[in-house]
Amino acid sequence: MLFFVGLGLYDERDISVKGLEIVRSADVVYAEFYTSRLMGTSIERLEQLYGREIRMLSRSEIEGEAEWLEHARERNVALLVGGDPMISTTHLDLRLRAIEMGIDTRVIHGSNIASAVPGITGLQNYRFGRSATVPFPHIVRGKRIVSSTPYNAVKDNLRRDLHTLLYLDIQDERFMCINEAAALLIEVANVSGDGNFASNLAVGIARAGSEDMCIRAGTLSELKTYSFGPPLHVMVIPGRLHFMEAKALRMLAGAPEELLSGYEL
Amino acid sequence: MLFFVGLGLYDERDISVKGLEIVRSADVVYAEFYTSRLMGTSIERLEQLYGREIRMLSRSEIEGEAEWLEHARERNVALLVGGDPMISTTHLDLRLRAIEMGIDTRVIHGSNIASAVPGITGLQNYRFGRSATVPFPHIVRGKRIVSSTPYNAVKDNLRRDLHTLLYLDIQDERFMCINEAAALLIEVANVSGDGNFASNLAVGIARAGSEDMCIRAGTLSELKTYSFGPPLHVMVIPGRLHFMEAKALRMLAGAPEELLSGYEL
Repeated sequence: MLFFVGLGLYDERDISVKGLEIVRSADVVYAEFYTSRLMGTSIERLEQLYGREIRMLSRSEIEGEAEWLEHARERNVALLVGGDPMISTTHLDLRLRAIEMGIDTRVIHGSNIASAVPGITGLQNYRFGRSATVPFPHIVRGKRIVSSTPYNAVKDNLRRDLHTLLYLDIQDERFMCINEAAALLIEVANVSGDGNFASNLAVGIARAGSEDMCIRAGTLSELKTYSFGPPLHVMVIPGRLHFMEAKALRMLAGAPEELLSGYEL
Repeated sequence: MLFFVGLGLYDERDISVKGLEIVRSADVVYAEFYTSRLMGTSIERLEQLYGREIRMLSRSEIEGEAEWLEHARERNVALLVGGDPMISTTHLDLRLRAIEMGIDTRVIHGSNIASAVPGITGLQNYRFGRSATVPFPHIVRGKRIVSSTPYNAVKDNLRRDLHTLLYLDIQDERFMCINEAAALLIEVANVSGDGNFASNLAVGIARAGSEDMCIRAGTLSELKTYSFGPPLHVMVIPGRLHFMEAKALRMLAGAPEELLSGYEL
């Protein structure tokens, strides 16, 4: 049996009691942290709480020849992943390969950023449209390319009065911060002739789920320079706000009164 | 301090280790289960695992005069809720009132249906559009009224190749099942002259997070009569499918091959 165990939002104690029991009783425990990072902990702290040795799997051991999967034919194997498993296509692909090998699989769910953001911001869950990722610019033949995909997703949702959750890119040990994401969105908007976009309301969230979480609402221009501290960062561009949502952003995220007045539905 | 503790998806062991520690060390423990049910457990089993007496709060004690909140001024109070807290406006309102009383609040996140559905179905998280609820029909002056809101949300997402998660109504101890929801959607579609809607691909999920979870993909007509067993039920109407999503629905939800062929992007 192969168990995909979600470790939840932030540190080693965000795993569920069910997940913990499975990890403690598994024959072998693996982990992979390249699709999703658990920022508030380390392998050593995970091993200490779980009382188990954890073997880290590399990207190629997950996506390529996964010899370790063979163990799951006869024994209980737990694979630890950040957040809720299966958010990443990588896990889905691995699960389907395991099933094709005749291995039973089970998913132990965990808290994760997508479901936590409504609670953190006070923005209502059912009013979020499609989410998107703000990628680092890349260089093609000496030219710097900034993706317009996240900007287009935001505009599409705004037209329908929906909120947008934006994930910020991670590449190796490089984490995009809210400042850079705000600057990139404004850059794309300006190129599209949408100069007002910089004065749009936005909410930045750093270290969701931790005790020193930082949340701040303001214009995109303001978020470009606000100091959020260490990663991970995500951002929300809200659509028009219900009364309660506006009140929440004022009380939970310090949104300026005058900015909200134009936003209420 | 007032802690909102999310109990997660299904039973008493879906709480996080962090949440469990907070419940065990709190001065007083309350719970409310009218905004979200934990189907796989009972108050007795919660009390046994957590080693604490739990006082159930009624709807009026949450939404009206919440005298119990006074305890949180001087002591640590835990409020247990199903899933992830704050998904419901009720919790947000309560949290803002507590803050206005000068009470510190903290949210302990949990797994929940919205974030679990992508993992369960293999449908990718970022391809879900706005979600909606299928409400029970209501009677106005002797006339039966069926809401067209969920149908419209589905059509809106389908036009944009997005998936729709549909929550099914709960009223007192009455839980809408997938059969009825499928029938209601088809009824609204027929009235709108959209007779083909019944042959649309849909996925039903019963008892998500439990060991006897039931998941089944088929046309809406098929889901109208498929036997899913006890609640809770939810439903997904997928937009067009990536290759991996189609493969997942075939392998995880028994989707018929011929139904999928027209669906792949």
